[in-house]
Amino acid sequence: MALMSISMSNFLIKSPNPQNTHLRFRQGLAIPQKRSLGIGHRTGRILCALIEADGGNLVELFVKGDLRDLKRREALEIPRIKLSRIDLQWVHVLSEGWASPLRGFMRESEFLQTLHFNSLRLDDGSVVNMSVPIVLAIDDKQKQRVGESDRVALVDSNNNTVAILSKIEIYKHNKEERIARTWGTTAPGLPYADEAITNAGHWLIGGDLEVIAPIRYGDGLDRFRLSPAELREEFVRRGADAVFAFQLRNPVHNGHALLMTDTRRRLLEMGYKNPVLLLHPLGGYTKADDVPLSWRMKQHEKVLEDGVLDPETTVVAIFPSPMHYAGPTEVQWHAKARINAGANFYIVGRDPAGMGHPVEKRDLYDADHGKKVLSMAPGLQRLNILPFKVAAYDKTQGKMAFFDPSRPQDFLFISGTKMRTLAKNKESPPDGFMCPGGWKVLVDYYDSLAVPENGKIPEAVPA
Amino acid sequence: MALMSISMSNFLIKSPNPQNTHLRFRQGLAIPQKRSLGIGHRTGRILCALIEADGGNLVELFVKGDLRDLKRREALEIPRIKLSRIDLQWVHVLSEGWASPLRGFMRESEFLQTLHFNSLRLDDGSVVNMSVPIVLAIDDKQKQRVGESDRVALVDSNNNTVAILSKIEIYKHNKEERIARTWGTTAPGLPYADEAITNAGHWLIGGDLEVIAPIRYGDGLDRFRLSPAELREEFVRRGADAVFAFQLRNPVHNGHALLMTDTRRRLLEMGYKNPVLLLHPLGGYTKADDVPLSWRMKQHEKVLEDGVLDPETTVVAIFPSPMHYAGPTEVQWHAKARINAGANFYIVGRDPAGMGHPVEKRDLYDADHGKKVLSMAPGLQRLNILPFKVAAYDKTQGKMAFFDPSRPQDFLFISGTKMRTLAKNKESPPDGFMCPGGWKVLVDYYDSLAVPENGKIPEAVPA
Repeated sequence: MALMSISMSNFLIKSPNPQNTHLRFRQGLAIPQKRSLGIGHRTGRILCALIEADGGNLVELFVKGDLRDLKRREALEIPRIKLSRIDLQWVHVLSEGWASPLRGFMRESEFLQTLHFNSLRLDDGSVVNMSVPIVLAIDDKQKQRVGESDRVALVDSNNNTVAILSKIEIYKHNKEERIARTWGTTAPGLPYADEAITNAGHWLIGGDLEVIAPIRYGDGLDRFRLSPAELREEFVRRGADAVFAFQLRNPVHNGHALLMTDTRRRLLEMGYKNPVLLLHPLGGYTKADDVPLSWRMKQHEKVLEDGVLDPETTVVAIFPSPMHYAGPTEVQWHAKARINAGANFYIVGRDPAGMGHPVEKRDLYDADHGKKVLSMAPGLQRLNILPFKVAAYDKTQGKMAFFDPSRPQDFLFISGTKMRTLAKNKESPPDGFMCPGGWKVLVDYYDSLAVPENGKIPEAVPA
Repeated sequence: MALMSISMSNFLIKSPNPQNTHLRFRQGLAIPQKRSLGIGHRTGRILCALIEADGGNLVELFVKGDLRDLKRREALEIPRIKLSRIDLQWVHVLSEGWASPLRGFMRESEFLQTLHFNSLRLDDGSVVNMSVPIVLAIDDKQKQRVGESDRVALVDSNNNTVAILSKIEIYKHNKEERIARTWGTTAPGLPYADEAITNAGHWLIGGDLEVIAPIRYGDGLDRFRLSPAELREEFVRRGADAVFAFQLRNPVHNGHALLMTDTRRRLLEMGYKNPVLLLHPLGGYTKADDVPLSWRMKQHEKVLEDGVLDPETTVVAIFPSPMHYAGPTEVQWHAKARINAGANFYIVGRDPAGMGHPVEKRDLYDADHGKKVLSMAPGLQRLNILPFKVAAYDKTQGKMAFFDPSRPQDFLFISGTKMRTLAKNKESPPDGFMCPGGWKVLVDYYDSLAVPENGKIPEAVPA
């Protein structure tokens, strides 16, 4: 992709042909964890034993290469279900094992455990976190078409077979209950609910997923979409003895950068020899007024060019999940998925995955609940939670710094809304808030929006 | 109480003075589980080791007798909070250890774990079930009055000190989120929400509870309000090697009786020598159109006189909790509380703790979700869940029998609504549906309701 400069490539895997390198990871239906770990047992003083995937094994759900044609032919003989854009993103998520040990769209027992307990109990009695329903909705007509079949083919908008779902179970989609238990509100205007639930079918179909081939979007960003297995291999290759993940869906400013470098410093102090940062922007569905993925990736590139993060100890990749904006419920999913990608430290900030209440004039979630819930969540005890320190613009230093409560008058808090308003109006933030190149990308993005006569910002470009 | 006949007393503890017998259980703040168990290690072939209370110890929160006056005087020196009727019922519940290991109204970490995980993680890493928030709401003025105090006195409607709450924590009461996560809906018209949440204060106050003296209601039913410790002692006294609990908030018909006797038969078949039934009507807040506790107790008495249940193997007692009508969420609370009372088997029926959707024309919960959620709930693995067989009126036999799907035409289903309508209209159900004495109580109850001109049934008598 032309937009990505050499400097950003440095943050990525350096193999000349990642496709080949990782092909073997893509073919099996599941990769035994020890196989991944095996690669990590290098000579030298650092033993690269990455955190185990949830359930012990990183699940991959791809059809083996030599069986693909057979499966495609089989798919022509069974009922077909067309996937929405968000459905396809969930197939992507499931196929690569971000939701390990899930092996497909949830059946009712998994759905109920997710809604009520934010976790799943496995056959051996152990518990893994699972806070967000990963489900596929169908309507009455589709249910009728499925009839007595125990398998269905999942197809994309061009009717190409994406996957086969087998041993299916169809159960009721109580949308109100799903929304209430996931978001803690049923107020109209929740972006994900409006996009993917309210108008979806009244049934959910769960089953075992076999994905014909890795999901590709052809938007020039696919090479940043590293699977958990690929990320694990990369961390092992770099000899990481700690991996700290930073989830983001917004442009990076110097406060974030400060936080990430400071986290690495703290991990070194704790005795780790080679902590590696996973800078992991979310790449699936986001709401219309968020900055689209392609522009965020451009912005991240400029920030990285600025040299505040060390390419040797930073991996940039895209997390393919859609965004729920479900606050304390969703932050667990964000953390759990990163365990599966090999991260054993997770940075959590103020009001993670939060947003304004869609109807009332307040934030939907208490700003502290996300980190509190995360620290108590079932199945996440293995993960080290690193709460954000609050960074703000220190007027005395002319740069972003950790907030010092003894001299509050010296600090300026620039919210996401404030940042976007400045960029929209082509005003500049204070020097040192964000590198100029990164800021220019933001200004360019808002410039690129042809504001139609009704004054509404058009829907974000599909991720 | 005059209404209770000898035959019903047979179902209760037989000590001439239950107050004395159990006094020592009331005085300590917590009873070590092994002490309870100790009583059960009798000679003979039955080893009465009751199921351990949640957290290992049955928690009781009473002030020791010789300290009561001191605590009452202390209470006069600290800020006071007046308890509502439902608040007082929760103090009752907490004081006797139904919610063990909770030691008072929930602080924020317990509240959040309850809402998100329906369970609490203890310091030793173990998990106990806790699905329903047990919280105390205060308003802005009360919060202001509490000020910097770390203790408050809880007083009843007559300003008598009931308890002291210490090491308090005050945090935000997000009512919308609480309702959505507890009920899976925010529709107006949820009875408990209307009664106890919507108009409650915007703050919650948690802390350690010390209750001055056992809660009494003076309604003639106090002697049926056995605490978990008293129930455990009774089960041990009877040499129970299995205790199966039957939660109810409705009149008992012969289908229930059939189920309870059949359950005992099944437990005997499983090899238990002396399974004891805990017939355990809920005694706290119920919605206006439920049959009030005093009438239900009269009805139960008549049914028991009828001789369908064996007094030797049945204990009748009142469960002091208020009712949430929160379906799959609440059934966990109903089950968990009975573990603390010594039950290791729990009978669960269709749509437990359910009700009609307050706005839409459908049941609020899927009728099967209760037993499914219960069977998967964290912290309840130790409890044996016994799903209901469906009983219905068999026209060919002229009695209640287990439904036989091979001859559906022979069965008549009589719903709670149908039953109430018949009783209201003084119509008779088919012979064999309920014993005539029990039915007459129902008819008498509806007779006793002076229907006001607006046709509305008055609010239920406080339980």
